[in-house]
Amino acid sequence: LSSKDPSLPDAGDDEDTFKILIATDVHLGYLEKDAIRGNDTNNTLNEILKCAKTNQVDFILLGGDLFHENKPSRKCLHNCITMLRKYCMGDSPIQFNILSDQTVNFNTTQFPWVNYQDENLNISIPVFSIHGNHDDPTGAEGLCALDLLCAAGLVNHFGHSQSVERIEISPILMQKGNTKLALYGLGSIPDERLYRMFVNNQVTMLRPKEDQDDWFNLFTIHQNRSKHGPTNYIPEQFLDDFLDLVVWGHEHECLITPTRNEQQLFYVTQPGSSVATSLSPGEARKKHIGLLRVKGRKMNLQKIPLKTVRQFFIQDVVLADYQDRFTPDTPQVTKKVEDLCYAKVTEMLEEAERERLGCPLTPEKPLIRLRVDYSGGFETFNTARFSQKFVDCLANPKDIIHFVRRREQKEDIKDEVNIDYSKLLKTTAAEGLRVEDLVKQYFEAAEQTVQLSLLTEQGMGKAIQEFVDKDEKDAIQELITYQLEKTQRHLQARGVTSEQEIDTEVRRFRDSKKNTTEEENDIKEVSKECRHRGDQPADLDISSELADINMDFDEDPIPAPTRGRGRGGRGRGGRGRGRVMLNQKILFHCCSSVIQGAASSEPKPAGRGRSQKSSATSQSRSIMQGRRM
Amino acid sequence: LSSKDPSLPDAGDDEDTFKILIATDVHLGYLEKDAIRGNDTNNTLNEILKCAKTNQVDFILLGGDLFHENKPSRKCLHNCITMLRKYCMGDSPIQFNILSDQTVNFNTTQFPWVNYQDENLNISIPVFSIHGNHDDPTGAEGLCALDLLCAAGLVNHFGHSQSVERIEISPILMQKGNTKLALYGLGSIPDERLYRMFVNNQVTMLRPKEDQDDWFNLFTIHQNRSKHGPTNYIPEQFLDDFLDLVVWGHEHECLITPTRNEQQLFYVTQPGSSVATSLSPGEARKKHIGLLRVKGRKMNLQKIPLKTVRQFFIQDVVLADYQDRFTPDTPQVTKKVEDLCYAKVTEMLEEAERERLGCPLTPEKPLIRLRVDYSGGFETFNTARFSQKFVDCLANPKDIIHFVRRREQKEDIKDEVNIDYSKLLKTTAAEGLRVEDLVKQYFEAAEQTVQLSLLTEQGMGKAIQEFVDKDEKDAIQELITYQLEKTQRHLQARGVTSEQEIDTEVRRFRDSKKNTTEEENDIKEVSKECRHRGDQPADLDISSELADINMDFDEDPIPAPTRGRGRGGRGRGGRGRGRVMLNQKILFHCCSSVIQGAASSEPKPAGRGRSQKSSATSQSRSIMQGRRM
Repeated sequence: LSSKDPSLPDAGDDEDTFKILIATDVHLGYLEKDAIRGNDTNNTLNEILKCAKTNQVDFILLGGDLFHENKPSRKCLHNCITMLRKYCMGDSPIQFNILSDQTVNFNTTQFPWVNYQDENLNISIPVFSIHGNHDDPTGAEGLCALDLLCAAGLVNHFGHSQSVERIEISPILMQKGNTKLALYGLGSIPDERLYRMFVNNQVTMLRPKEDQDDWFNLFTIHQNRSKHGPTNYIPEQFLDDFLDLVVWGHEHECLITPTRNEQQLFYVTQPGSSVATSLSPGEARKKHIGLLRVKGRKMNLQKIPLKTVRQFFIQDVVLADYQDRFTPDTPQVTKKVEDLCYAKVTEMLEEAERERLGCPLTPEKPLIRLRVDYSGGFETFNTARFSQKFVDCLANPKDIIHFVRRREQKEDIKDEVNIDYSKLLKTTAAEGLRVEDLVKQYFEAAEQTVQLSLLTEQGMGKAIQEFVDKDEKDAIQELITYQLEKTQRHLQARGVTSEQEIDTEVRRFRDSKKNTTEEENDIKEVSKECRHRGDQPADLDISSELADINMDFDEDPIPAPTRGRGRGGRGRGGRGRGRVMLNQKILFHCCSSVIQGAASSEPKPAGRGRSQKSSATSQSRSIMQGRRM
Repeated sequence: LSSKDPSLPDAGDDEDTFKILIATDVHLGYLEKDAIRGNDTNNTLNEILKCAKTNQVDFILLGGDLFHENKPSRKCLHNCITMLRKYCMGDSPIQFNILSDQTVNFNTTQFPWVNYQDENLNISIPVFSIHGNHDDPTGAEGLCALDLLCAAGLVNHFGHSQSVERIEISPILMQKGNTKLALYGLGSIPDERLYRMFVNNQVTMLRPKEDQDDWFNLFTIHQNRSKHGPTNYIPEQFLDDFLDLVVWGHEHECLITPTRNEQQLFYVTQPGSSVATSLSPGEARKKHIGLLRVKGRKMNLQKIPLKTVRQFFIQDVVLADYQDRFTPDTPQVTKKVEDLCYAKVTEMLEEAERERLGCPLTPEKPLIRLRVDYSGGFETFNTARFSQKFVDCLANPKDIIHFVRRREQKEDIKDEVNIDYSKLLKTTAAEGLRVEDLVKQYFEAAEQTVQLSLLTEQGMGKAIQEFVDKDEKDAIQELITYQLEKTQRHLQARGVTSEQEIDTEVRRFRDSKKNTTEEENDIKEVSKECRHRGDQPADLDISSELADINMDFDEDPIPAPTRGRGRGGRGRGGRGRGRVMLNQKILFHCCSSVIQGAASSEPKPAGRGRSQKSSATSQSRSIMQGRRM
């Protein structure tokens, strides 16, 4: 068996075995004002932390979106702090060491070290978390909600890239006994941007220079895994093949049993959210967290079902299938349809009730969704009246019924297997950001005002997006202030003194930034993090429904060794790939060079080739070496 | 010398001496977006905490308004957490014990004990704080910003009364060597309400049953001290005379040298804010914090000037006083007035510059305010143009000049000495809340809607006040939901089943709550804390200007023993009072009984007399005995 065989037959806990509790998308505070569901996310976070304590794990790994809101309420923060202090502080000793430079790993607070090594805090279970798209950094300081917990010493926030131009993912190198674990993380970045950065070779994963094959390489990411648009996701193929396991956050469907990527030959586990934030099929799958064991280069992922999660049942009804009972022309057809739906919902409620027997932690009222396909001439009925009948028995009386037409259901289904990457990449280059387009018109009208003329349409669009998405009231003003100062410096440098010259110079200065990444960097400078979130409100996974259909839900906690294909004699340098991968790689190189060529007009120091940049690693990264994808 | 002589001649630090750093109204986050002043409050909190560390104090006592905003920004919270963790955690051992029941003292988190006794936290300087009116509790959980710090173990929030009906202030009983310190605190409550509660004997300070005379009694309060309206302040006479020292927060003027209340014979120190949040004379006084030493029953308060506070100079110009230079009829009088003001401001700037010499921590640009009394026929000039001249030299170019007329300045001046309490008390009873009146009209128009009809005008008004003041988006909905459930229970209890009966019953139920405190309690139940803030935005102290005029600014760190009048043979039970006090007490008793009588229609368990209530103290208060004021 090669070193990539993930099977760890011995699930016993010894001094060489890392035990890691894996969870993601807790969405603490989701619907916290709801009379029925308000406490769901608290209960489940409590269960997760309790589970970590019971299992005496070495650490907890969270894949982002611990919080549902970018600015969690006081109550939500208070609950979170309270639970973390309750479960993650205490006397149990920590059994592993960190070998990497912690000032590089933990760079978001004034305490750049892992919390359990702080002599003023008695941590029993360290929590490591990347940020998600819901709780990502905003504002001039680039702080996110996690950073409050981090400053208080309750969480270790990692994987926060401080640059928009280049991402270097430096792993937390951990050692327990003889096992060496390299923990990589990348906090949420808008999918389109990250896609583009991967394509442009701007993403680097650093690796230890020595004994590379001794490390188990674990990567946590919070992005679209299923395709939402041409570049609105991250193909697994983008990730480096030296990885052993990817913990994929953001996707809410629980697909926690590791599946192997047959091209990259790493495994991917998608734990899924611990709460349903939409009534889509992916969320109806039973929710789990994982207990990952890593010993040497072998791993074992044990699925742990969550007991406090509210049940969710979803079913489809196609009215056209009931020709034996009614057609659109049948007298009182609406009544008959309603009766059918009533029966279906009642049936689901009964199923929920049966399933809940003996599960005292499961909330009483389930979530029920009936998708009614009324295509073929049927009409919808009054859902308000329908809801009344179930108001006391389920948690979502107001939105049980969802009327759909067949076309709606089908149109999002895409073929995931044969992707024409060349086509995608061309689209990338041409693609603009929606909001930016909308703003352009507004901006042109407002160009007279001095302030706005400092920004390009793109910059303004991004600032507005921040304003809308993140409730950042000062996003626009901050960018304007920053650009004003920058423009002033520019004018001074140009020796502009008369008022007449200013307008011309301002225009020239601004236009020089169009179609370059400079203004994007300015925005970054101002708010230190990306504004644009492709799919922020949805977290909905339609295309992954398909992948589901033919997949067994493996209840075996140990991934069967027969599922894995050994790597044979292949080295770890990416040699010996299949044809598809080779084509893909070539394509990437071609495309990047084109895009890089086009961007050469940007006023950046020229001549910093890759190798040069690579050698300019800081002292803190001296034990790392970069490998660009 | 009696035990109330505050002079502690020996300022040495021995094992019997409590060293307490006293500060209040830090207003962290005030103007945090301002390019010039944005970092002022951070710098000063940093200075305060550093000072505590340098002086190796036993603890820090904060008098409220640590935060300027009820919902501090993420940046502001992050800064605060960072500084507290930096300065208040560490290895210095804590030298005092807490003897009281901590579950009573610290009742706002799930960790009801002092932070330094938590075995998971290494606290070197415990911080004890009450909440102010800016950072007071809101929402259904009654949490305030301090409680986040409290949950994280960085602050000990005390003095939070959970009831609107009755306030029992249970002291934190501390012992260091042979010194016994009883620390009382009362977080901010709307002045009118607290005034009424004092008058109605609803405020009780509990005292240890045994060895009462051994305790040094320190009380921290955050209320108006100067009179803003008939009942819109708390007279010192309301506070119990067993106290030794009152630390009075909320008032921003630094009057930190303890002054004796000649009736109650306790001392009051008013540290004042550590930042100017208004350009009023009280804020122009030099800012200090205090280093309080308590040994046995003696004390000593050392004033420590703050070095990071931005200078603030204010001056008055009465144009009518310059008849030798101009009158309203002088040609180009406006120009001459402007020139005069220019000279005055320049003069203040020069003074600021001189004073700042050798103070590297003081920010460069001072705050300057010139109040121009233009009564007598003068006209105002263009302040925007005037400001331009000073835009680079001071911190508040936009609001240097404040035009006033003599009448405006004088009208708030009240005679503080001879208060007719009987008159005040009558006003109390008749007084309504401004916003409630405004809402009444709206409410009457909207009475048809079922939801609103559940609330009285008063309840609605209070919910709206919360909504406006505290940015509590859900205040109204929460109250409605609560009242809906309560009404439903009421209807069930009444056996109402038909729809016809409901409207009548709802109306009857609602009306029964008018003019009672029940709905007020409901609101309390919903948001667990008061909504109405009398003077929330101002923090402006006009009447205290007067008191200032003839007062020496005592630079002597030790209050001169000759200032104190010994208590002679007077016991501690309140006997031997002057006539004024006696009258006042009798009056209070009369008034309370009237008000209590009027409220007897409220549907509360009857027959719980005072002594009964008093005897029903919980086990946790068994060492205390109440003494109602």
